[in-house]
Amino acid sequence: MSDIKHIVDKNSERYLNELFALLRIPSVSADPKYKTDVLRMADAVKDSLVAAGAEKVEICPTPGYPIVYGEKIIDTNLPTVLVYGHYDVQPPDPLELWTSPPFEPVIRNGNIYARGSADDKGQVFMHVKAFELMLQNNLLPCNVKFMIEGEEEVGSSNLDNFLEANKERLKADCVLVSDTSMIANDIPSINTGLRGLSYVEVEVTGPNRDLHSGVYGGGVANPINVLCEMIASLKDSDLHISIPGFYDDVIELSQAERDALNSAPFEVEEYKRELKIGDVMGEKGYSTLERTATRPTLDVNGIWGGYTGEGAKTVLPSKAYAKISMRLVPNQSPDKITELFKKHFESIAPAGVKVEVRPHHGGWPVVTPTDSNEYRAAAKAMQTTFGKEPIPARGGGSIPIVASFEKILGLKTVLMGFGLDTDDIHSPDEHYGVFNYLKGIETIPYFFRYYAEMKQNG
Amino acid sequence: MSDIKHIVDKNSERYLNELFALLRIPSVSADPKYKTDVLRMADAVKDSLVAAGAEKVEICPTPGYPIVYGEKIIDTNLPTVLVYGHYDVQPPDPLELWTSPPFEPVIRNGNIYARGSADDKGQVFMHVKAFELMLQNNLLPCNVKFMIEGEEEVGSSNLDNFLEANKERLKADCVLVSDTSMIANDIPSINTGLRGLSYVEVEVTGPNRDLHSGVYGGGVANPINVLCEMIASLKDSDLHISIPGFYDDVIELSQAERDALNSAPFEVEEYKRELKIGDVMGEKGYSTLERTATRPTLDVNGIWGGYTGEGAKTVLPSKAYAKISMRLVPNQSPDKITELFKKHFESIAPAGVKVEVRPHHGGWPVVTPTDSNEYRAAAKAMQTTFGKEPIPARGGGSIPIVASFEKILGLKTVLMGFGLDTDDIHSPDEHYGVFNYLKGIETIPYFFRYYAEMKQNG
Repeated sequence: MSDIKHIVDKNSERYLNELFALLRIPSVSADPKYKTDVLRMADAVKDSLVAAGAEKVEICPTPGYPIVYGEKIIDTNLPTVLVYGHYDVQPPDPLELWTSPPFEPVIRNGNIYARGSADDKGQVFMHVKAFELMLQNNLLPCNVKFMIEGEEEVGSSNLDNFLEANKERLKADCVLVSDTSMIANDIPSINTGLRGLSYVEVEVTGPNRDLHSGVYGGGVANPINVLCEMIASLKDSDLHISIPGFYDDVIELSQAERDALNSAPFEVEEYKRELKIGDVMGEKGYSTLERTATRPTLDVNGIWGGYTGEGAKTVLPSKAYAKISMRLVPNQSPDKITELFKKHFESIAPAGVKVEVRPHHGGWPVVTPTDSNEYRAAAKAMQTTFGKEPIPARGGGSIPIVASFEKILGLKTVLMGFGLDTDDIHSPDEHYGVFNYLKGIETIPYFFRYYAEMKQNG
Repeated sequence: MSDIKHIVDKNSERYLNELFALLRIPSVSADPKYKTDVLRMADAVKDSLVAAGAEKVEICPTPGYPIVYGEKIIDTNLPTVLVYGHYDVQPPDPLELWTSPPFEPVIRNGNIYARGSADDKGQVFMHVKAFELMLQNNLLPCNVKFMIEGEEEVGSSNLDNFLEANKERLKADCVLVSDTSMIANDIPSINTGLRGLSYVEVEVTGPNRDLHSGVYGGGVANPINVLCEMIASLKDSDLHISIPGFYDDVIELSQAERDALNSAPFEVEEYKRELKIGDVMGEKGYSTLERTATRPTLDVNGIWGGYTGEGAKTVLPSKAYAKISMRLVPNQSPDKITELFKKHFESIAPAGVKVEVRPHHGGWPVVTPTDSNEYRAAAKAMQTTFGKEPIPARGGGSIPIVASFEKILGLKTVLMGFGLDTDDIHSPDEHYGVFNYLKGIETIPYFFRYYAEMKQNG
């Protein structure tokens, strides 16, 4: 198998061109105006699986966007790997901050710039190409099943039902997912934990119409001021979240776990320089690595209300809105946290306003084991191709579906992602390293090989 | 003069049609995209003055939008009234909340619906038509000068220079302005005080780019959360403004003044019902009438940042913005308050963010006397046409120019406005009563008559 790198190098241009074709489809699941594009993307994923040699490829309808399934069963006695990924992407806004258009992929400084390049089209397509490579070169040592969904960025709300209804078809030995990042290209790491998510939209209504701030100002509640006060009150001066019961289910890390986490390579001065910030900021008593990987958060993701155009308008608006998300850590339930938020937020509203809290999707936090065959196979594969043993690392993001794999299918997941935290995956100028893309295609066949060996040796 | 009402009635349809033509011009001064419309409006004002019989009518250029001047000098021994108004209007946003388009005037339920109908085109045009009426019927007992500007809604920043440069041309005995409201159609009132204004835009920058809230959330300052906390901290739990020095120059009202103010007809339950609010809200220790007329305020007029589209996006944004205005009361200086705000706001920014405060226009608060000839003439005119003596009442809005008239021209102003607080003047569905429009045209000639008589009698 020493010629895998050679094969990848020889085909790299084609691998890139085929990915570019997928990146040109604006499959934004959050915004209904992209609906036909998302559906077109599902077709493209299907075609790519068929072309790579997958069988029983099918676009499986759901009440939302479809799930693309495909498989290659070479021997039912061999272990089966279920590959999961998603073909939908985040909205590209704000468009004006992109250096090049989000759906016209280009390579600059060794990076592929496009919405979805890292999250998750580039990482999904590594698996399709690695599968093709193994099949064409007689290197496939396991059965493979692909399940690529189109609603990850909006909460995967139809996936649980799909899992329930397809338990037999999805039978496997483990789930392999590339939708996370490594510490650095020369510090490979494997994600062993993900935060969960609770996401709400709030609407604060003051007077029944926009008013003149001179005539009414000072006499009635201004919903923007009130919203700001309510949001500010959700954290105390230590930036501890003040929603009653919020931390009740949090499992605190042991000192040993904290020490291990904090021993990962991390330079706070470099982090500050890279983000151009005067200082880091977060919950008192925790390091930056702890804050972003092991502590729950509360962030306003969007806020709007009143006059936001050019110049000055002295309006006292009727309404103000915010989108607020909370990242959750192991043992916190997204439904429970959403309910606690809603109850608390409604309770702190002054009499001069009405408040509505609308929950969006949520997701469970997960921790993956480091002593499983799949983790060890992934670690050995990365060691082979990177020349360095990967570090187990907690990630701050959320892939709610990982909890469902365990709960519904009884399967453990290994999160072998090849992105970097600096890929700007939900931001303008999202990019994915050409190095990372090709290194992923090269590494995946080793995962299959080592996994098959480990399973055979029990 | 008992036939004035008769003349107004006979011409009412024409008066309305001519006003409608002016209301169709979207003369929004705050937004550069309306520039040609604002200039077109200046032409229309000029034409209307010429048509009414004014002389030396001129569009006077300024570095911003022009000021339209016109006059009728019948006898230099007679007193001269300087009529001030503005032909620019507030932005019409949010457009979707208008029942009918903002620049297509219609009459519904006795009201003229259009942006600018009450503020201030309708009220300015009353003066043009009343002047025409007096001239055509030999009823003009004073000299008249018109000065109609196009930048009132953006701070009248070129008017002071115009006053300085045109002291001789603008020589007069008093200034007459209709740009305020009465308590009710059956409770006529004259505005005797206006709040000043300080208006700033703030920009809070966290990281140098939008980030993934899962990867970075909890570790770096979120500029929206920080902006909310900073805004919330600007008031204490009694809704007292906590900017150091903010109240230093405020002249507190005497108990007698407060009692007089609070004796004005006002039903808090009706006020709550009309605005559909559960309760009023404002500074502790003051009544609603005091809060909206005699106390300084701090209102957020607009706020924006992060993802505000459909669905959920887990972004940790780079920037958040707000437009914040403070209404000021007599003796507070807009420049000083803006400076206090800026200094304070910058001082409370945590190290994780950068803050920029950009001042917009400001305006001085004013109090007008009730013992002047012009006030007494206005009161007697309204008594004549409404059949009821008007109440002196403080208004919450701002007409910064009133302070300049006194400072630069040495002239006192009488604020004889015919609008109502419920006219929604800076909101969707701005309207002006047909009754109020025609009653204004009818009342103005009496003002001129009584003013001439009072001046003659010393």
